[in-house]
Amino acid sequence: MELKENERIDDLQRHGYRIIQNRNKFCFGMDAVLLSGFVCESEHRKDLQIADLGTGTGIIPLLLHARLSSSGENREDAGGKMQITGLEIQKDMQEMAERSVRLNGLSEDIRILHADAGKASALLGKGCMDVVTSNPPYMKKGSGLYNPDDSKAISRHEILMNFEDVAREASSLLKPGGRFYLVHRPERLTELIITLRAHHLEPKRLRMVHSFADSQAAMVLMETAKGGGTFLKVEHPLIIYKEKGVYTDEIREIYYY
Amino acid sequence: MELKENERIDDLQRHGYRIIQNRNKFCFGMDAVLLSGFVCESEHRKDLQIADLGTGTGIIPLLLHARLSSSGENREDAGGKMQITGLEIQKDMQEMAERSVRLNGLSEDIRILHADAGKASALLGKGCMDVVTSNPPYMKKGSGLYNPDDSKAISRHEILMNFEDVAREASSLLKPGGRFYLVHRPERLTELIITLRAHHLEPKRLRMVHSFADSQAAMVLMETAKGGGTFLKVEHPLIIYKEKGVYTDEIREIYYY
Repeated sequence: MELKENERIDDLQRHGYRIIQNRNKFCFGMDAVLLSGFVCESEHRKDLQIADLGTGTGIIPLLLHARLSSSGENREDAGGKMQITGLEIQKDMQEMAERSVRLNGLSEDIRILHADAGKASALLGKGCMDVVTSNPPYMKKGSGLYNPDDSKAISRHEILMNFEDVAREASSLLKPGGRFYLVHRPERLTELIITLRAHHLEPKRLRMVHSFADSQAAMVLMETAKGGGTFLKVEHPLIIYKEKGVYTDEIREIYYY
Repeated sequence: MELKENERIDDLQRHGYRIIQNRNKFCFGMDAVLLSGFVCESEHRKDLQIADLGTGTGIIPLLLHARLSSSGENREDAGGKMQITGLEIQKDMQEMAERSVRLNGLSEDIRILHADAGKASALLGKGCMDVVTSNPPYMKKGSGLYNPDDSKAISRHEILMNFEDVAREASSLLKPGGRFYLVHRPERLTELIITLRAHHLEPKRLRMVHSFADSQAAMVLMETAKGGGTFLKVEHPLIIYKEKGVYTDEIREIYYY
């Protein structure tokens, strides 16, 4: 596999899975890793239809595949087959993610499409997915300083897709009772909940992520169900560091299992 | 002070403040104590106009008075004066709470009215409060088994007042920018947020309360602002026990300061 300028291959510490990243573009963060772990606390089947909206490097499809393909359930089930579709609007990112999929020999199970995730259901069809995931841009359009042509800015700011687009498409893609998982900023929790509910995505499970046990939440992980009943479980907090520079046991478990 | 049958006097461990409770009626819980502590993280002035909706034993007015009257700010300010109004619909509870206020010699600063908190703004006036607090009934009407005539059931279930009533009255009572503080069940967080927002109460600060560091949230503390901007701070989690039967330092600090 030939690498382009500024690209490198990182080991995902999971069954030998690897990923290509470009040091000048948006690289995956802990949020994508934690979201993948959060999804796999609830999902164990191997025959899921999954869509990832705004897949970037393809990190979430790769991590979900690594976990779900080795999960215990349906091991004997020759019927269903996992299919993960990542949508990425930036051509260079989509092309790099596709090479990562090929690098791992997963082209049969994972496809990365060059497409606007804000039009995902028109492309992939309505009511066809068991699971939708997204690590969407966190920052509102116009908040902070950025160059709107910059690849990193498109990943971080709601320039090409806002949360309303994400929620609408997630809901539209899902089968009834299907699950939409996301990671976002707690500062926007009120808006997230109102927008999700407006699109019939009922919050079912929520987990706050804190850098330290005594610091405010830095991320929120959410599991929502299309057309689900109103009962929200707020999980115990996920703490990243037990002291400066030292991960908690739970983070170590999520990263190296 | 003469006590009625089944009544006892409890020491609040705060400057000698005491409270009358009846062992056969709803007694205050940790939620009211934590809510009072949470309010006093944000409020420090001594000249506040405060209303407590569904005050029960009067625990929240008493604890807020104990904390705010001894706080450092406005110590020299002879201008404003704290006035706390508790509303309680159950006559026997209201009468008992009133006796607790007298027992502490606080009748000038705290009044307990026999009134429906769901009509609070018609009674007290609109836009007159700096702070509104409530530890409302947590359970939906009809959920679980109860005797609707039972005093404890009225405190626990939305028989006489639901969350919509609480949010509407809190918003109506508050001055622009005034704060409404509440404690509730995390299972209902989605509905809480949607109802609060519908009444122009913007969630500003949220704290999850967990029995243990690894158990799901048992309560949620919320600070909302009337007409506030959208930015929510999710505080670090409040953990009750560091091990079985042993309170964390923070809980000890809230209880015995």
